[in-house]
Amino acid sequence: MSAEKPLFPFVTVDVALFTIDEQRVKVLLVKREEAPYAGCWALPGGALKPHLDGTLLDAVHRVMERKLSASLPWVEEVCTFNGANRDPRGWSLSVLHMALFPMDRIQAVAGLRVSEVKWADAELPLEALAFDHRRVLERAVQHLRNSVERGALPLQMLPEKFTLTQLQKTCEIVLGKSLDKSAFRRRLKELHAGDIEEIEGEFERGVQRPAQLWKAVKHRQ
Amino acid sequence: MSAEKPLFPFVTVDVALFTIDEQRVKVLLVKREEAPYAGCWALPGGALKPHLDGTLLDAVHRVMERKLSASLPWVEEVCTFNGANRDPRGWSLSVLHMALFPMDRIQAVAGLRVSEVKWADAELPLEALAFDHRRVLERAVQHLRNSVERGALPLQMLPEKFTLTQLQKTCEIVLGKSLDKSAFRRRLKELHAGDIEEIEGEFERGVQRPAQLWKAVKHRQ
Repeated sequence: MSAEKPLFPFVTVDVALFTIDEQRVKVLLVKREEAPYAGCWALPGGALKPHLDGTLLDAVHRVMERKLSASLPWVEEVCTFNGANRDPRGWSLSVLHMALFPMDRIQAVAGLRVSEVKWADAELPLEALAFDHRRVLERAVQHLRNSVERGALPLQMLPEKFTLTQLQKTCEIVLGKSLDKSAFRRRLKELHAGDIEEIEGEFERGVQRPAQLWKAVKHRQ
Repeated sequence: MSAEKPLFPFVTVDVALFTIDEQRVKVLLVKREEAPYAGCWALPGGALKPHLDGTLLDAVHRVMERKLSASLPWVEEVCTFNGANRDPRGWSLSVLHMALFPMDRIQAVAGLRVSEVKWADAELPLEALAFDHRRVLERAVQHLRNSVERGALPLQMLPEKFTLTQLQKTCEIVLGKSLDKSAFRRRLKELHAGDIEEIEGEFERGVQRPAQLWKAVKHRQ
């Protein structure tokens, strides 16, 4: 134990990056290379570097570009996890962010450094997670579910072009329950008329009754 | 300008403490004694002291007990305000908290150090606020309104004993609109049966048709 009192907390950003794969919500985990918890899986994150990062969001993008070699289309702050005892290195303040990733780009990330990065089941991860990351992940999953429950569309998880059935299915996977099709379509019209639009003349391929393709009006932050 | 790069951000907690007075949502402001912004009004707050505070919430209670000489019955984290440029002293990370205060205890705080602490109109403050506190306050008001909009009861703003009319009126003031009485009562029964309870045999006083008094089942965190 050091006799010196810490003057500053250790500030980090952690990111719960969600996508959909095999009909499940998946979260990106990275294998920790250094102590503490070397060899354990964890949510990707890293220390805020005030001389590099103008804001916490800058830190999120910097950290994730390094780990993923990919930029995040969409990020949102969730809450902090903080305290004197959550990290053996000292007083730690981590700001949890939630990010959504398009399901059709999952391979680009998974193939990157396959031993160090993986997509795990977000609700029932089999991995032992470092620090308090199991609790952090639960909170992030709850945040995602709450926002879809309140009517937000997880458009950033979808491919650039999608059918309304695919959109509904994505909401259902996040919520863990099926939704009534006509109520869902009505809600889209009433609440999200400005969020998505039909792509004129484009329909899905390779099916007997191809459905209209749609796109997000504002797909990027 | 110092040539040295900062290694750590400056971590603070800021608190939007709300109550109801004169049919308006009020927020507690304190006059800053020191630079920067000496003499300006600001949301109460202070630096995290890792050697004193086990968590950010401990910091909130320590700072508020010093400023108010009163303990907060209820506190919730809202979000962070952060960046290299929001505080002239350097990279600043402030974690905004929302707290609610009982309307019948407002005098205890207001009378304390009247020149340095005051309750201001939360939605239309006349005061010039320090830092980015006007934006921070707007965000806190929005957070309060959203939580009541989603069905949370702002019980911590009410006196210990209250009528259902008083509860409805408090929600209406927060939301800035009137609510249908029978729909409100129905929602109370359906969603909040476990949150409030009748005080047997107690009714309001000094009115012609005294209404039943109620109390919160879990009034404190």
